Amino acid sequence: MIEGKRLALLVEDGFEDSEVSEPLRAMKDAGARVLIVGSGSKPSYRGKRGSVDVMADTTADRVDVSELDAVIVPGGYAPDRMRLHEPMIDLVREAHAKGKIVAAVCHGPQLLISADIVKGRRVTSWPSIAVDLRNAGAIWVDEPMVRDGNIITSRRPSDLPRFNKALINALLAESLYVNEREQYAGAKQDNHS
Amino acid sequence: MIEGKRLALLVEDGFEDSEVSEPLRAMKDAGARVLIVGSGSKPSYRGKRGSVDVMADTTADRVDVSELDAVIVPGGYAPDRMRLHEPMIDLVREAHAKGKIVAAVCHGPQLLISADIVKGRRVTSWPSIAVDLRNAGAIWVDEPMVRDGNIITSRRPSDLPRFNKALINALLAESLYVNEREQYAGAKQDNHS
Repeated sequence: MIEGKRLALLVEDGFEDSEVSEPLRAMKDAGARVLIVGSGSKPSYRGKRGSVDVMADTTADRVDVSELDAVIVPGGYAPDRMRLHEPMIDLVREAHAKGKIVAAVCHGPQLLISADIVKGRRVTSWPSIAVDLRNAGAIWVDEPMVRDGNIITSRRPSDLPRFNKALINALLAESLYVNEREQYAGAKQDNHS
Repeated sequence: MIEGKRLALLVEDGFEDSEVSEPLRAMKDAGARVLIVGSGSKPSYRGKRGSVDVMADTTADRVDVSELDAVIVPGGYAPDRMRLHEPMIDLVREAHAKGKIVAAVCHGPQLLISADIVKGRRVTSWPSIAVDLRNAGAIWVDEPMVRDGNIITSRRPSDLPRFNKALINALLAESLYVNEREQYAGAKQDNHS
């Protein structure tokens, strides 16, 4: 399915447990490689419900964004902490600028506000931060999954199945697009030979 | 000092413990009456550190704002929950519209964003929400205590002594102003008699 795709899953203490564990499992099951990216404040991070602990593979300042296909931002209290680390914000801003898929759920879009990438974009989130997203220029809607270009957002843990599916579909579509481009490039080369 | 003053201290689960207990003690010590106002989601609320439990005296929808002198919004995770309850937002908006003192610390200003009362105002907060305050039109500054008219804000628990002092001073100044107005009204009445 999405073998070879590389995703960065951003973590900090207090993430909504299922919003880390479920995308992680879904993406791995679909064949992707998931890099756990911490802020650098500590080596491992714990969910707000204490049911999930994750060890970071690397820190945000060491990630080469050009090697990624997507960035996932879980919710809970973690995004409020991620926003205090400039490299976490830079990673999201740069991924967006390079056209990578940026997927955020629950309070995750707080980091998208900090990266200033939601202006004019249709997004959703946990309802408490709808006002902050609107003030940042986003068009906030109350839907289980919203995709606007490279930005995918969802509201809460119960939206995760749709969120994960949308993310996989976006990565698949990206592969098709790249394949088409390669075939096109190949055909052009054939014509020139 | 500020005997007879009536303050509403807003609460929801997950408040920063000291940001409820310290203003509560300081205001009571100064002679004020403090009403603990809950969102209505439950009868009592617990701090994020589990060291403070408070029973609500009333709910936001039952408060007569005209009988208050000030509203205090503590920080922690509580303001994120308060924002989901329209009567909590209305209370802050109405208190501001009536010129009452609105004091918020740490994440407390999130509720001021929801009430849309920070436009053009100098404020401070926990740094993670500085971007949200700026997007809401506020002039964000990194200072232990900021007073702009009726709005008093601070950044974190260690700022609480200055926060409490500023709140007491604002209530004292309000008393002096009211006394002056009454004396002036009295003098005018004397002239007319």
